[in-house]
Amino acid sequence: MLPALPPDRLLLGPGPSPTAPSVLLALARPTLGHLDPWLLARMDELRAGLREVFRAPNGTALALSSTGTSGIEHVVFHLVEPGERVLIGSSGYFGARLAEIARRAGADVIVVEGAWGRALDPDALRKAAAGKRCKLVALVHGETSTGVLQDPRPYRALADELGALLALDCVTTLGTAPLEFEAWGLDAAWSCSQKGLACVSGLAPVCFSARALQAIRARRTPVASFYFDLALLLDYWGGARGYHHTASSNLLIALHEALRLVLEEGLPARWQRHERNARVLWSGAAERGLELLVPEAERLPALTTLKVPAGVDDARARKMLLERYDLEIGGGLGPLKGQVWRIGLMGHGSSERNARLALGALCTAIDEQRRRG
Amino acid sequence: MLPALPPDRLLLGPGPSPTAPSVLLALARPTLGHLDPWLLARMDELRAGLREVFRAPNGTALALSSTGTSGIEHVVFHLVEPGERVLIGSSGYFGARLAEIARRAGADVIVVEGAWGRALDPDALRKAAAGKRCKLVALVHGETSTGVLQDPRPYRALADELGALLALDCVTTLGTAPLEFEAWGLDAAWSCSQKGLACVSGLAPVCFSARALQAIRARRTPVASFYFDLALLLDYWGGARGYHHTASSNLLIALHEALRLVLEEGLPARWQRHERNARVLWSGAAERGLELLVPEAERLPALTTLKVPAGVDDARARKMLLERYDLEIGGGLGPLKGQVWRIGLMGHGSSERNARLALGALCTAIDEQRRRG
Repeated sequence: MLPALPPDRLLLGPGPSPTAPSVLLALARPTLGHLDPWLLARMDELRAGLREVFRAPNGTALALSSTGTSGIEHVVFHLVEPGERVLIGSSGYFGARLAEIARRAGADVIVVEGAWGRALDPDALRKAAAGKRCKLVALVHGETSTGVLQDPRPYRALADELGALLALDCVTTLGTAPLEFEAWGLDAAWSCSQKGLACVSGLAPVCFSARALQAIRARRTPVASFYFDLALLLDYWGGARGYHHTASSNLLIALHEALRLVLEEGLPARWQRHERNARVLWSGAAERGLELLVPEAERLPALTTLKVPAGVDDARARKMLLERYDLEIGGGLGPLKGQVWRIGLMGHGSSERNARLALGALCTAIDEQRRRG
Repeated sequence: MLPALPPDRLLLGPGPSPTAPSVLLALARPTLGHLDPWLLARMDELRAGLREVFRAPNGTALALSSTGTSGIEHVVFHLVEPGERVLIGSSGYFGARLAEIARRAGADVIVVEGAWGRALDPDALRKAAAGKRCKLVALVHGETSTGVLQDPRPYRALADELGALLALDCVTTLGTAPLEFEAWGLDAAWSCSQKGLACVSGLAPVCFSARALQAIRARRTPVASFYFDLALLLDYWGGARGYHHTASSNLLIALHEALRLVLEEGLPARWQRHERNARVLWSGAAERGLELLVPEAERLPALTTLKVPAGVDDARARKMLLERYDLEIGGGLGPLKGQVWRIGLMGHGSSERNARLALGALCTAIDEQRRRG
């Protein structure tokens, strides 16, 4: 094996986003033991920071030692027991993933599928549930496969009607778009470290309401996973500080620094920055005749889907950007494969410079294909 | 939140071990996308490197995006289906954890418990199984709670007698002690990144034999976990390169560098270094009248358990070492709490200097307690 010196990519795809420089430095500090008192004190601050970014002053937050996808699994496998009914709104790849994980949890899953590229209609979910009691209503706040921002506010009333808890996938919205865990009445939310928070991947922030914790305590069947068992994790993160697994001090200290940067900027300022730079991209795309997949009112600030123009090869364009410019943007997933590009302006990567740069580079790739055929 | 600058601890406990300097630098390289072709090529090398360190040229190896404990769960939940019989040898905290995870997998678990601080007797396991067919025989190679090295070789014959697969917990032995996945006839093994490999925690190397993969393909029930689903992981690591989760390029590149260092040193040289430095600690302890928990023939080179002398307070001594010397050693777990210290000389931390330093510091702490009362 030879030493591996990675190329210096500019990450303007669906995530990871560019890691903030001071976060990379924090990551490389000497390692600490997972029970080191200094680290445990930082973990307390980290939990407080997560409650701030989720806007959940009374929530219970921690970070799983695994990536964002494990957050879905952790929440769903804790809130749902086999045979219980779950109502899921899905209009993209990650809504479908949420439904798959609920099925794997043994739930009786009602999925309401919306058009990829559009927000869901709460009344379609209400109709599908037909008043049947549900344990959980779950949906995706920012659908990373389509670039749609789903307003979760109407779903609290629906969850109440069905006697259900409400869970939200915030993988792409935490730190990039308004998110109000408590004001919106959420019971659980999960996210990742490598998008809006500008940390590296490897940790999954999760947050639970008191009601969700109560539902978990009232389970009739135990949670099968030892690794993701919330009771054991809470004992480590805040209880008796019992050993459960060897959490990575390097990742935790990196996330600590990432949260510090988010809170130093301030959430409203950060949300506005994402919105402002997304608008630069949106108006620039319109000026250059590129079509956006999502209507303006339903767009996710952190991730924009541009339709691949007729006659242009999606993969060839992305390859050119990666090889010539060290620039990563995303392709489409599922039915959108080859149909859209996904440009992420997230976290440290959300800047006017990057918005203009991505668009300029993409237009160069398109022009070149058209010229060369 | 204030910026967090970690103290510079010397990690001579049960793990994490000191991260090798070039691994910390590799960790802090700019982040890459999880589907970046450059990263995918490094992941191929990483798999080859893992096959080398496991000594499994025909094995299927990869690293889970989670810590060592998840390796137990991943392997057990794949190899065992609800109701199937599992035979587990346990003589320590991690043997007990293995049994608990097998129970959580719904297995019919036969646990043979040995004395903490001694190796198991294969005939005790044979007797307990009483010839009943088992799906899996599983045990711990290096029991980190007691400092015992368990020779897994006699268990292949036993597993064959019972028609079982053989799985081994190599969390503390990978890269520190002779381990021969193929020559010993193992079907599955798991480890961590932060001990013998001198990387940070956050990745769990796992390895499967062809027979184990066949058993997984022949399952009657699906694996519940999406995050740990081997078929999906293999599709990402080596198949269609399908997106499954956002693996951390920073962690993967750090592990790549860690494996490079291991293979540059050479496994036999590395095993000998661990053995040699452990012997410095063992003989030094004997000279100073400190008693070792484990008989010499059964000792783990990477981790030594010293009995806390009568009248000495374990926690007070460890606190003094941490606060005055920035030196971490481990305390006892379970029934050994307050009874032993655990000194790890692992990976980059296995040196004669550290062996003498740990012992000298510990003796200072003991002397001080005796003097001050």
